[in-house]
Amino acid sequence: MQIAILGLGTIGSGVYKIIAGQTNQTKKLQVTHILAKADHPAMLPIESTDYDAILADPALDAVVETMGGIEPAHSYILKALAAHKHVVTANKAVTALYLREFIEAAEANGVHFYYEATTGGGIPWLKNLENAARVDDVQSFSGIFNGTSNYILDQMTKTGEDFDSALASAQALGYAEKDPTADVDGLDVANKVRISGAIAFNTAPNFALPTVGIRHVSAQDIAWANDHNLAIRLLGEAVRQHDRFAAVIAPTLVPQQSLEAQCPDNFNLIRLDGPTIGELQFFGQGAGQLPTAHAIIQDLLDIALNVPHLARHFNRTLKNDAAMLRGDFIWRDGDTYEYLADRTVGELIIRQNEHPQASFLRIGKEVNHESLQIRRLFNGQRQSVQ
Amino acid sequence: MQIAILGLGTIGSGVYKIIAGQTNQTKKLQVTHILAKADHPAMLPIESTDYDAILADPALDAVVETMGGIEPAHSYILKALAAHKHVVTANKAVTALYLREFIEAAEANGVHFYYEATTGGGIPWLKNLENAARVDDVQSFSGIFNGTSNYILDQMTKTGEDFDSALASAQALGYAEKDPTADVDGLDVANKVRISGAIAFNTAPNFALPTVGIRHVSAQDIAWANDHNLAIRLLGEAVRQHDRFAAVIAPTLVPQQSLEAQCPDNFNLIRLDGPTIGELQFFGQGAGQLPTAHAIIQDLLDIALNVPHLARHFNRTLKNDAAMLRGDFIWRDGDTYEYLADRTVGELIIRQNEHPQASFLRIGKEVNHESLQIRRLFNGQRQSVQ
Repeated sequence: MQIAILGLGTIGSGVYKIIAGQTNQTKKLQVTHILAKADHPAMLPIESTDYDAILADPALDAVVETMGGIEPAHSYILKALAAHKHVVTANKAVTALYLREFIEAAEANGVHFYYEATTGGGIPWLKNLENAARVDDVQSFSGIFNGTSNYILDQMTKTGEDFDSALASAQALGYAEKDPTADVDGLDVANKVRISGAIAFNTAPNFALPTVGIRHVSAQDIAWANDHNLAIRLLGEAVRQHDRFAAVIAPTLVPQQSLEAQCPDNFNLIRLDGPTIGELQFFGQGAGQLPTAHAIIQDLLDIALNVPHLARHFNRTLKNDAAMLRGDFIWRDGDTYEYLADRTVGELIIRQNEHPQASFLRIGKEVNHESLQIRRLFNGQRQSVQ
Repeated sequence: MQIAILGLGTIGSGVYKIIAGQTNQTKKLQVTHILAKADHPAMLPIESTDYDAILADPALDAVVETMGGIEPAHSYILKALAAHKHVVTANKAVTALYLREFIEAAEANGVHFYYEATTGGGIPWLKNLENAARVDDVQSFSGIFNGTSNYILDQMTKTGEDFDSALASAQALGYAEKDPTADVDGLDVANKVRISGAIAFNTAPNFALPTVGIRHVSAQDIAWANDHNLAIRLLGEAVRQHDRFAAVIAPTLVPQQSLEAQCPDNFNLIRLDGPTIGELQFFGQGAGQLPTAHAIIQDLLDIALNVPHLARHFNRTLKNDAAMLRGDFIWRDGDTYEYLADRTVGELIIRQNEHPQASFLRIGKEVNHESLQIRRLFNGQRQSVQ
C-alpha cells in the first residue's frame, strides 16, 4: 500500500518513522510521497511541493493528512478523495467541521475517509465506540479528551500553583502551545466531542455545545475541591435518550476516589455506556507523536486489510435538549462559594458573562452531595458552602 | 447469519436475548438452533438435544459455545469446525487449554474460531490487544482480570471485613459461585493471562505461570496496606523482551492514588504497553450476562461482516524467564510484616509451602518504596516494617 504524507510536522514524521520501522503488519505500508512546504528545504528524495503530481501517481493508494488547520487541509482532502485515494487524518478541526462532506465524497469515489487519530490520540476510542454502536444504542459518553488541560489541572492539584504557572510549565514541556487557546478554552475538546457525538448518535457534528475551558480555575478552587475530597477535571459529556440528546464541556468536580481524578499528567480517559456492554472506559496517551501516529497507522492497516468501519451518514434527526444535562454547580465570586441547583451550563455561561470576575464548576454525577455539606432545601435554592 | 447456541445458561441466554432484540447490526444475526440438555425440558421450538442434527443443517453458519468446562465443549468445538461452522466461545478454560488446536482446525476448515468473551467480559480487550500487536511488539500487559476477587478485595477495603465474610457477600450477590476456587485462587485469571499472553507474544498458552490467589489476604493485610497508603489488588502481569518473557499472578500492593486501586466492585482493568502506542488501559464489566454476551455478538458480527482478526499461530519460541519479574515482597507471619527484596513469585510460593500460616504480597512497580518506610541497605536484606 503506497502512501503520501501531507505535512512532515510532529505527527507526519511519526507516521513516517513507524512505517520506516517495518514492524509486524506495517510491512504492508510504504511512504512514496511527502508533500513539503514550498519554503522548506527538501530532506528526502520523495518530498515534493506539487500536490497535483502526487495525486496523479496511479500507484498511490492513500493520503495521510497531518497539516492541521482548516485550509488547505479541507480542499486537499477533497482533492485526494476525488482522485480515488483513501484519506486518513489526525486533523480534528477540519474533521469536526466537514465530517459529513468527507464521508460522502469518500463513498462517492469508492474509497475510505478514516479519522481515528482525531480523538483520543493513541486510544482506539472511535473504533471501540463504533463497535459498541454496532450492537448498542450508546446512551452516553464522557471523559477527559484533552491532555494539555489535564496536565495543567493535575499540576495545580499536586503543587498548589495557579493556572498561569502550570500553563507555563506545560509550555516548557511542550505539552501546551504558545497560544494555548484551543487546549485550555475547551475548543479542542469540542472538536472531539462533536466527532464522537456524530458517531455515537449518528447525527451531524455541528450541534449546539456549551463549552467552558479551565482558564478561570484558580488555585483557590483546587484547594476548595481538595477540602471536599474532590478534584477538578475538564470533562466533555454527551447523553442521548430516544430522539433527544445534549452535550456540554465544562470543568467538573469529581470524587478523589474515582478513575477521572486518578487520570494523571497529560493522559486521556474516555467512557461510554450502552445497554448491553455496560460501562466501558479507555485510558491512554491522548496526544504525542508516536501514539497519534500509531492511530493513523491503524486506520491505514484497516484500509490495507479491508477492515470495514461502521458506516455512518450522520443523518439522524435528534432534538438538542440542554435540559437533559441540567444539574448542580458551585459558583465562586471572590472568596465566596455558592451552591446553585438545577441549572444548565448555558445558563451559567450567561450568568458568568454578567460577572466576569466569577467562575463556576459543574458537579459531576458521581459526587456525593453530602460531601459538599449542603442540605438542598428546595429546588434552586442557593446556599453558601464552606 | 444463522447461529446455534450450545448451552442456554446465563451467557447463552444473554446471546439469545441480544439477538432477539434485533438492535442495529444484530439484525444480521438469527438463532436457529439451541442445544439443550437431555434432562432439561425444552422451552423453545428451536431447542434440540441432537448435536449432530444441528451441525447437519447446511444453512447453519456459526456455533456459539457457552457450555463451559473442558468436555464435551472441546470435542463439540472441534466437531463444529470440522463441519465448516464458525465457532465463537466464552469458555476460557477450554480456550486456554486448546487454543492452538482450535485455531488450526478452524484454518484447515476455512472458518473462524473467535474468543473475545473469554477474557475481560464486555471489555474488547483481545481485539484491542490484537490491533496493538499489528504495529507494536507488545512489551507487557497487566491488570485486574477477575471481577469476583476484585469485589472481595474492594469489600474488604471498604468495610474492614475478613475474606470469608466478603466471599459470603459476593456469593449472596451472585458474583461468586458456591465453589469459588477458580475465582479466588487465581485459576480464572491464569486462563485469561494464558490467552492474552498467547496473543501478545504469539507463543503457546501453556507457559509456566506462578499463580497465587487471594484466599490468604487478611483483614489485617488490608489495614496494613491502608496504613501505608496502599491497596491490594489481584494482578496478572506478563512482560517480554526480545526472546524472553515471564508472567505471574499474585495479590499485589498498588498505590491508593492509582487507577488499579480505584477499580471498584467487580470491574476489570487491563493494561498494555507498546513502543509506539504507549500505555493503554481498558476498564469495564469483566463478567455478567449482557456484557459477556455483547462480546460474543461482536465476534459474530466480525464473522458476518468479514472483519479479519489477527492471525496468530502461537509458534514463536520464547524462553520463559521468571527473573524478568523478580521484585520485592511483603511477607506476613503472624503479626509480623517483613520486606523481602529481589525474589520471584515462585520462590515465595515455595517459602509459603514451608510456612502455611504465612502469606505474602507482591509490591507493584508503581509503589514508592519510601512510603513503606524502608531503607533497602543491600540486595536481599530483610527489614521488619511497621
